[in-house]
Amino acid sequence: MTQATEQLKKRLSTIGNIQRAAALLEWDMQTYMPQGGAAARAEQLATLSEISHDMFASQETVRLLEQAEQSASSLDPSSEEARLVQRARRDYDHTARIPTELQSDIARHSALAQDVWQRARAANDFPTFAPYLEKSFDLARQVADNLGYTTEPYDALLDMFEEDAKAAEIAIMFADLKPHLVELTKAIVKSPRKGQDAPIPGPFPIEAQNAVTKKIVASLGYDFNRGSQDQAPHPFCSGFSRNDVRITTRFNRDYLNMALYASLHEAGHAMYEQGLPEEYDNTPLGHAASMGAHESQSRLWENLVGRSRQFAEYVLPTLKEAFPSQMGNVTPDQFYRSANCVQPSFIRVEADEVTYNLHVLLRFELERDVLSGNLKVADLPEAWNAKMQEYLGVTPAAHSEGVMQDVHWAAGLIGYFPTYSLGNLLSAQLWNSIRKVNPDLDEQLRRGEFAPLLGWLREKIHSRARLLKPDALIREATGESLNAKYYVDYLKFKYTALYEL
Amino acid sequence: MTQATEQLKKRLSTIGNIQRAAALLEWDMQTYMPQGGAAARAEQLATLSEISHDMFASQETVRLLEQAEQSASSLDPSSEEARLVQRARRDYDHTARIPTELQSDIARHSALAQDVWQRARAANDFPTFAPYLEKSFDLARQVADNLGYTTEPYDALLDMFEEDAKAAEIAIMFADLKPHLVELTKAIVKSPRKGQDAPIPGPFPIEAQNAVTKKIVASLGYDFNRGSQDQAPHPFCSGFSRNDVRITTRFNRDYLNMALYASLHEAGHAMYEQGLPEEYDNTPLGHAASMGAHESQSRLWENLVGRSRQFAEYVLPTLKEAFPSQMGNVTPDQFYRSANCVQPSFIRVEADEVTYNLHVLLRFELERDVLSGNLKVADLPEAWNAKMQEYLGVTPAAHSEGVMQDVHWAAGLIGYFPTYSLGNLLSAQLWNSIRKVNPDLDEQLRRGEFAPLLGWLREKIHSRARLLKPDALIREATGESLNAKYYVDYLKFKYTALYEL
Repeated sequence: MTQATEQLKKRLSTIGNIQRAAALLEWDMQTYMPQGGAAARAEQLATLSEISHDMFASQETVRLLEQAEQSASSLDPSSEEARLVQRARRDYDHTARIPTELQSDIARHSALAQDVWQRARAANDFPTFAPYLEKSFDLARQVADNLGYTTEPYDALLDMFEEDAKAAEIAIMFADLKPHLVELTKAIVKSPRKGQDAPIPGPFPIEAQNAVTKKIVASLGYDFNRGSQDQAPHPFCSGFSRNDVRITTRFNRDYLNMALYASLHEAGHAMYEQGLPEEYDNTPLGHAASMGAHESQSRLWENLVGRSRQFAEYVLPTLKEAFPSQMGNVTPDQFYRSANCVQPSFIRVEADEVTYNLHVLLRFELERDVLSGNLKVADLPEAWNAKMQEYLGVTPAAHSEGVMQDVHWAAGLIGYFPTYSLGNLLSAQLWNSIRKVNPDLDEQLRRGEFAPLLGWLREKIHSRARLLKPDALIREATGESLNAKYYVDYLKFKYTALYEL
Repeated sequence: MTQATEQLKKRLSTIGNIQRAAALLEWDMQTYMPQGGAAARAEQLATLSEISHDMFASQETVRLLEQAEQSASSLDPSSEEARLVQRARRDYDHTARIPTELQSDIARHSALAQDVWQRARAANDFPTFAPYLEKSFDLARQVADNLGYTTEPYDALLDMFEEDAKAAEIAIMFADLKPHLVELTKAIVKSPRKGQDAPIPGPFPIEAQNAVTKKIVASLGYDFNRGSQDQAPHPFCSGFSRNDVRITTRFNRDYLNMALYASLHEAGHAMYEQGLPEEYDNTPLGHAASMGAHESQSRLWENLVGRSRQFAEYVLPTLKEAFPSQMGNVTPDQFYRSANCVQPSFIRVEADEVTYNLHVLLRFELERDVLSGNLKVADLPEAWNAKMQEYLGVTPAAHSEGVMQDVHWAAGLIGYFPTYSLGNLLSAQLWNSIRKVNPDLDEQLRRGEFAPLLGWLREKIHSRARLLKPDALIREATGESLNAKYYVDYLKFKYTALYEL
């Protein structure tokens, strides 16, 4: 790297340190912070956000950036250094367009809103949460206005999570996907095999669930020397360097799959971050390519691996060891069916693979409507329930399992949801590519040999970090742009067999 | 408050937010951070330290400080506002004298050194730790040189923890104290009652220890809505606002008193911080008066309350409920004796009330010698063991239970140890004052009514925050300056009866 780029990197790593500190404060807020800490925490986050924003948007950073651009101009644009400078430019432009006060307002509000959300959800109290939700959308609209957009404000927000993605294209993707999902769901619900997919009855003591899920994600390749599993009301993964990437999960004493699949999902995220190259750590390259790419990893380990027939065979002895009396008589087929029960239901994170994307579609449409002014926040609960009825044929009895179920809007993650569906599609597309070069994959999974799979992901996705834009990464890894066909084929093949359709 | 002071307060609260974020990063480092996180954490702490230091030492802060001093100059010097400005001046002067680079070096080094210490202590490996310890002392010496001192470098460090204290006076205090402690220890060891003070045999499952210690400290008045109890290799208390003050403890399956008295000690610290006035939060007044004052609270709850005959009667039913088979036949007298076993031993934090201050004396003398250049770090283990033999008549078999036992030197807390002894003396002096106005105290403790005691401490100590210098606070609360007599009398009275001397 040239000296100019080294200087830029140094400046950005200082800013990165502040952002990482803020990320730890957010992790703590969801894990160990006592309730009383919320107000002061919001101020701490606002301060860190303001300082990192000011440092990033400062004249000094521009100067270093321009110097680095100058010295990178003679380099191959696909070189590491040129890409680092391009990424830094994108991050800078984004930051500089957001006023400092808006940035710290967002940090403060998001901390306070998450606190209120947590308690309001528990009390099923939408009116208390509504003004915070209103403000979340208002702040998001201001962000979109500052960032700018051609067609609609949603695009500006989406672009933060998935570079170059457009709401109109997402809408087309869902329009393609939806009939397949609806049709498949209907067929499954009528299947004579329905009813053989019940959860394994518990109870499963929490301590033992914690121990066994840790053991399982460690066996996949999640490195606990550089990570940990803690408990949070809404599971997430958060990293403060590639050598400190933590997951959280949640437990239900009577339903083992809640913790198991939350852990698998978050470990999928975490292995991505643990696999980012050491030399990119705390630089503009040391991130996932996009949130869609991130979700492709979580959904791949959760679903393509974790809900496969092969994994059922691998994992069952471990679960039987942990829960001999509860799991002793369970067969791999029974476990496989219980992990793939397709059933229209209320909670996105608990949804099966078939109905899951309908939950995302609903959120995408609603947040797009609110942002463009076609729907009021006060009318969100009703609109939510109407769409649930329309897409899934069910109506939540309480807002806590309806419009208030997700932390995202409180946390300011508006425009994020579509990346879950992009991740689902990508996970199946990657899987298709892996199988081509590794025909032994099924047998490996059955034996619990995850290293070849993880190795492929490390090579094709993790080690590529943020060198490429999402589309370029997908084309490099799979030979084509994102294509819903693989996901649809995967679902049809799997569930036709499972439910004997 | 005048507008000038409000502006100063706002600036300092921003700096306070950064320092609080750093404190959370340190808390995490001792509780939940995976091993791999240490290097990045050191950089994060160095950045936060540098930023808060630069903001504090900046022209802008001086300008606001001078404006506030101007507007406070017409006020009664004992008014809240005048005191706030005085405290801010002291903090500013201290900060401005330390160069930014030294400050961030200290933050980085202390994070790295604690990581090395933890592993080196576990492996009983002094040579690996030695260069870090060397650097800790070197940095402390630089701090002392920058802060300035009249007599010896130790004074400059001590003053950071205990305003106006001097090493020479501490030495005199210990010289007064030592013969009493040595004599009392000798008499006890020969007592026919020795041997009746054995620990209650376990095992005590960790989960149950955690639950019962939480229940007990909550009953004292520690507010879990504004706190939590987590686990750490070296118990500590850390606060990120008066509404988020956390304690840590540690467990030994076979020795319940380790966790019980660590929890009581840290809860004593935490109740102080939870009792600081809301309106001083995140201002120069919103701190303990000194570390000696802080330790007076922890040692008071740990010892004067927790190791009293009355507390034994109160707490035993709770412990019997948690551990029916282990504690079922234990009498209050037996529990009382087990909690007050006087025995020369290796570990300070496990030491009884009589020998405890000899452990502190040893550390005080050693760090004073190293700082003044009379002792090399390489010779510390030998010097440690020689003094252990001289003062306590025992020699640790391993450095892990000798010179490497405490986190303080790794964490850069050189000059801190004497505050434990100041705290011990003050705890007995406060106790004497409380008894005068509350003759019913013993009966209250027996019944588990801690509110009158906590109320007195809230009024005389906690609510006074950092309005007064340590000596003024002590005089206000007890009518005289710190006086070792109360502690010596307390020990003699208690242990003469207990061991029938």
